[in-house]
Amino acid sequence: MAGIVPSRRVRGTPFTAGVQAAGAKAYTVYNHMLLASYFESYEADYRHLKEHVQVWDVAVERQVSVKGPDALRLMKMMSPRDMDRMADDQCYYVPICDHNGGMLNDPVAIKLAQDHYWLSLADGDLLQYALGLAIASNMDVEIVEPDVSPLAVQGPKADELMSRVFGDDVRDIRFFRYKRMAFMDTEFVVARSGWSKQGGFEIYVDGTQYGMPLWDALMAAGQDLNVRAGCPNLIERIEGGLLSFGSDMTRENTPVEAGLAKFCNSPEDYIGKSVIEAQKENGPPRQIRPIEISGSGDLPHNATGWSVYADGKNVGLIASATWSPDFNTNVAIGMIDAGYWDAGQELIVNTGAGERSARVKDRFWI
Amino acid sequence: MAGIVPSRRVRGTPFTAGVQAAGAKAYTVYNHMLLASYFESYEADYRHLKEHVQVWDVAVERQVSVKGPDALRLMKMMSPRDMDRMADDQCYYVPICDHNGGMLNDPVAIKLAQDHYWLSLADGDLLQYALGLAIASNMDVEIVEPDVSPLAVQGPKADELMSRVFGDDVRDIRFFRYKRMAFMDTEFVVARSGWSKQGGFEIYVDGTQYGMPLWDALMAAGQDLNVRAGCPNLIERIEGGLLSFGSDMTRENTPVEAGLAKFCNSPEDYIGKSVIEAQKENGPPRQIRPIEISGSGDLPHNATGWSVYADGKNVGLIASATWSPDFNTNVAIGMIDAGYWDAGQELIVNTGAGERSARVKDRFWI
Repeated sequence: MAGIVPSRRVRGTPFTAGVQAAGAKAYTVYNHMLLASYFESYEADYRHLKEHVQVWDVAVERQVSVKGPDALRLMKMMSPRDMDRMADDQCYYVPICDHNGGMLNDPVAIKLAQDHYWLSLADGDLLQYALGLAIASNMDVEIVEPDVSPLAVQGPKADELMSRVFGDDVRDIRFFRYKRMAFMDTEFVVARSGWSKQGGFEIYVDGTQYGMPLWDALMAAGQDLNVRAGCPNLIERIEGGLLSFGSDMTRENTPVEAGLAKFCNSPEDYIGKSVIEAQKENGPPRQIRPIEISGSGDLPHNATGWSVYADGKNVGLIASATWSPDFNTNVAIGMIDAGYWDAGQELIVNTGAGERSARVKDRFWI
Repeated sequence: MAGIVPSRRVRGTPFTAGVQAAGAKAYTVYNHMLLASYFESYEADYRHLKEHVQVWDVAVERQVSVKGPDALRLMKMMSPRDMDRMADDQCYYVPICDHNGGMLNDPVAIKLAQDHYWLSLADGDLLQYALGLAIASNMDVEIVEPDVSPLAVQGPKADELMSRVFGDDVRDIRFFRYKRMAFMDTEFVVARSGWSKQGGFEIYVDGTQYGMPLWDALMAAGQDLNVRAGCPNLIERIEGGLLSFGSDMTRENTPVEAGLAKFCNSPEDYIGKSVIEAQKENGPPRQIRPIEISGSGDLPHNATGWSVYADGKNVGLIASATWSPDFNTNVAIGMIDAGYWDAGQELIVNTGAGERSARVKDRFWI
């Protein structure tokens, strides 16, 4: 594993000093920024996440700020989800597509005002898509990447830690809703959300200067809770079926293929609607499935995606796979062709270091 | 320097096996792909590049393929450069902007046919901008990322090495022009271009399966030329004033500020034209300049951009700086405010590890 050279183009975050001091051992790059991959080890981080509470630098979830008289019009053009049903304090998971229904990103949209939304991105410059649509449509809307960097607090003790820093009102925030909570001389959008199944919050830190003070405040307040620096965990997110755009699905896939049909309910004529509606009606040609891979926990690292076979032909791809200590099996996320995705289907996976038998599961593990 | 974890989302290239075997010691991530930063060392790579010939995996220069009846119309909408003057075998450096003239990328456009262009990207998903413009404009054009991965051959012996693999016709390719050259059972676009000032070619390898065969053919043919694996070199590219989009200039800057006014000559009503034309007329508020930084070659690594001061105020930013063995000084690229960019202007640079005096140069070093 060779090192990575940061630059202004591949930059740190407002929390990088904290992440480095906590001893991140490997990184990936996500939206032109560094994102830790693990600290102690994937497994030790996972065990701690499930028992205690972690602070995650997820500043890489860059925001696209869409603001102005035409903001809602642009959101309706892009969103397969019915924007008119979005509550004022709501966060919406919205797969965003091209005209063929091909996914371009799967951000979380936050409604800050009737004329102001943030799109909290997966990896990919969706800002450029929004900008292209708005410019060519002559929309009166400002599209920028603000100085907003999410910090996630995840794990079973997240409510306790957050209440110590932000007050007990954080406990009342409902799932995928937010409140504005005071910190120092400002306030942040704080949502009950995050890329784990252990519960917790994402704090939209508005202003780089608040990054390390908030990091330090959380670490200080959580000492007796055994708080640690963490990051999205490969094992836990596969167990939970949390999809990584760019790995588990790409522009080659529709939201229906990604198992996100329930988020495609907009009555508007949004981009990609005809393909998505047809797939909802007739079924997609392939779909995301949980896959259990046989054998012991010595799978190689999946750096490229592994081909999946049945009946002697290629019927899918697995881009995420790892050993799960809690479920004592290899857990994986696959994009599997129609006819081969039923629970119990036997598959062969080419891991690049030998073949393994595998089986489609009926549901993810957590 | 911590390690990087590859995934399907941050992927290798058709040449990664060659790059790894050659011993790349550090990487960056560029357009969701790995790009080597150096092999032996920045300085050893630089010395070798200036004397011999190197093969560079620049597959990260992903292509946006724009094809169809409206391809030229879309290109004219995006390009500040006069597309009607583009020869059939020409490559055009085209800064692409938003409606405020803010740069979104600075690709090299290649004209494959009247209705087919490739945009060879700097870091950033410009595909999404093109797609947004095309969809909102109802254009009849297909926009995809093809399986095309540039491989660069750079250095004073590049013509000799290339002629051994592709035949002597490669010697006749003019600067920023291309020919289609045969390889195995196919042919590639081969252009005289590349991100160094040492001369050479970029081969647009169309089809992953040809990657390692071409890599191996070049390495075998160049043994007596002392061919080596290389990559864009920090020292050489700063000496030559080759700009890195995302570092030296961003969406905060226009092409005029980036010193690229000469590429903005389109008579069409392209996006950003009014701002660009006004800046050409009245001068930009800041501009890219070569900067010489005093002192010895122990500058820290510039991971964030360094603020530049004069008359006690912040007058610019330096995002690229390093020691130049050949010019025996610290060479740098800065974005400097009007009033402070004249050759000879004295500046103070805050490197994060102390201040250094600096001076604006009249031109880059090579």
